[in-house]
Amino acid sequence: MTATLIDGKAIAARMVEEVRAEAADLAARGWAPRLVSISVGDVAAAELYVRNQQRQAEAAGVAFEARNYPATISLEQLTGVMIGLNADPRVNGIIIQRPLPPHIPVKALQKAVHPLKDVEGMHPSSIGNIVYNDLALGPCTAVAAVEILKTLPLNIEGLDVCVIGHSEIVGKPIAFLMMGLGATVTVCHHMTRQVAVHSRAADAVFVAVGKPGLVTGAMLKPGAALIDIGINRVEGKTVGDADFESCAKVAGWITPVPGGVGPVTVATLLKNAVLATRMQMDHYSAAFAVER
Amino acid sequence: MTATLIDGKAIAARMVEEVRAEAADLAARGWAPRLVSISVGDVAAAELYVRNQQRQAEAAGVAFEARNYPATISLEQLTGVMIGLNADPRVNGIIIQRPLPPHIPVKALQKAVHPLKDVEGMHPSSIGNIVYNDLALGPCTAVAAVEILKTLPLNIEGLDVCVIGHSEIVGKPIAFLMMGLGATVTVCHHMTRQVAVHSRAADAVFVAVGKPGLVTGAMLKPGAALIDIGINRVEGKTVGDADFESCAKVAGWITPVPGGVGPVTVATLLKNAVLATRMQMDHYSAAFAVER
Repeated sequence: MTATLIDGKAIAARMVEEVRAEAADLAARGWAPRLVSISVGDVAAAELYVRNQQRQAEAAGVAFEARNYPATISLEQLTGVMIGLNADPRVNGIIIQRPLPPHIPVKALQKAVHPLKDVEGMHPSSIGNIVYNDLALGPCTAVAAVEILKTLPLNIEGLDVCVIGHSEIVGKPIAFLMMGLGATVTVCHHMTRQVAVHSRAADAVFVAVGKPGLVTGAMLKPGAALIDIGINRVEGKTVGDADFESCAKVAGWITPVPGGVGPVTVATLLKNAVLATRMQMDHYSAAFAVER
Repeated sequence: MTATLIDGKAIAARMVEEVRAEAADLAARGWAPRLVSISVGDVAAAELYVRNQQRQAEAAGVAFEARNYPATISLEQLTGVMIGLNADPRVNGIIIQRPLPPHIPVKALQKAVHPLKDVEGMHPSSIGNIVYNDLALGPCTAVAAVEILKTLPLNIEGLDVCVIGHSEIVGKPIAFLMMGLGATVTVCHHMTRQVAVHSRAADAVFVAVGKPGLVTGAMLKPGAALIDIGINRVEGKTVGDADFESCAKVAGWITPVPGGVGPVTVATLLKNAVLATRMQMDHYSAAFAVER
């Protein structure tokens, strides 16, 4: 192995430190940040995940209320819940836990979250604001992957970047975040004729497809950075989309799975929580100042 | 010249034919489409442009009201105007003509347009919906450029596409639209190290920078499609971003400037107008059905 292993946990810990300071400052102004998590039905796997989020949020000074609704709730009822949370100034961010039952389309619910409370960065206007290069709430996984790249000693302006996977909430947002930073970005996906042609020309490769072993060392330029966003279960182990062994021999930097993008994603959610709280505080202050 | 010249006027004429049929159908249902154009100050050049838009809209059965406000109007007053237009069911689309006086930031005004009336496709949520691959109101120039490519006998799935220029309202939306159609897209810009490396590998090149002569024949793969979105004035003539003479010798298809993307952009605005009107009609109908 020649690649430097990227320590996602250390990056996350630094981010959480900043969140804690910001949360304390907001609390001192009467705006202690508070998240509400919505899950629907009896989902044991998700519950573990939610409890982990809650523990990390509270450790960073972000209050966290986990709500679970029965699988029989209708979309209309759940939308009503969202409207209430949107209007409640004591709620600063709304998290919609997946999976949802088939009769609750996740996109309809995401659109019901007020953009100022969209800490997951999934609302169409959040995505659009990123395209417009506005400092806004970005999709957590995409923002986390880019934050990791920013810790490396690379000049991002003019950097040739290859993004493998073009999902709306990971691949595409990574592409426009990197464009906003000045990189030259190519987005590959299942219809791309020769992924290796593009990945081998890139200084940094992001992969977010969900196929273990998709990226091999032969597909990388020697010394490139490889950010692996995949999370797959193989023979009881969690692995990414890269064949770690062969990639680590060629890459300059590589993220492990687990311990790479994962922890930074949770830290990004908390960063969005304090960012959203500050935006709401400023929004209320501005409205108040106008009325005087 | 070996390239086939792409006839933007003919493509636009076919689109306007469809708009006319759709406008007639909407009118028969009591929803005759109607646009309001907002311009501010005494801008002679824009006036010519607006009158041209009006003529084309009316020819397609889309009513068009051109409003001009004095340069002294404040942002608050203009925002108030927008709120009124948003609420008025007889207005189906709002166009904000540029340039605006310096004290009226165009983005603030674009955000004030209701997304369902955003016929220019500039609202952040319109942009985000494109990223989400929803059929929505897209930015006219970007949509027009992609519509032109779709008329060519090329299989867009897996097509290698190079977009030169990464503006929020042209380059980036072209990239997402093409990704949504299955192309492998690279976006180049002023920080890209070697644009030619990317453009020469591409089956289709879009250029939207605003620099005459930026793309030359030597930068193209023989037989590639070149969609030139630039509009520049050089020695009293309107030219694009491509060096037409050298590009036409190498490309398989090329758009002229003028007569390429320009006419299709106006047709796209009118297509958005009928699309917006239908969305509003459906929105009202759905609300009405719920209330019964």
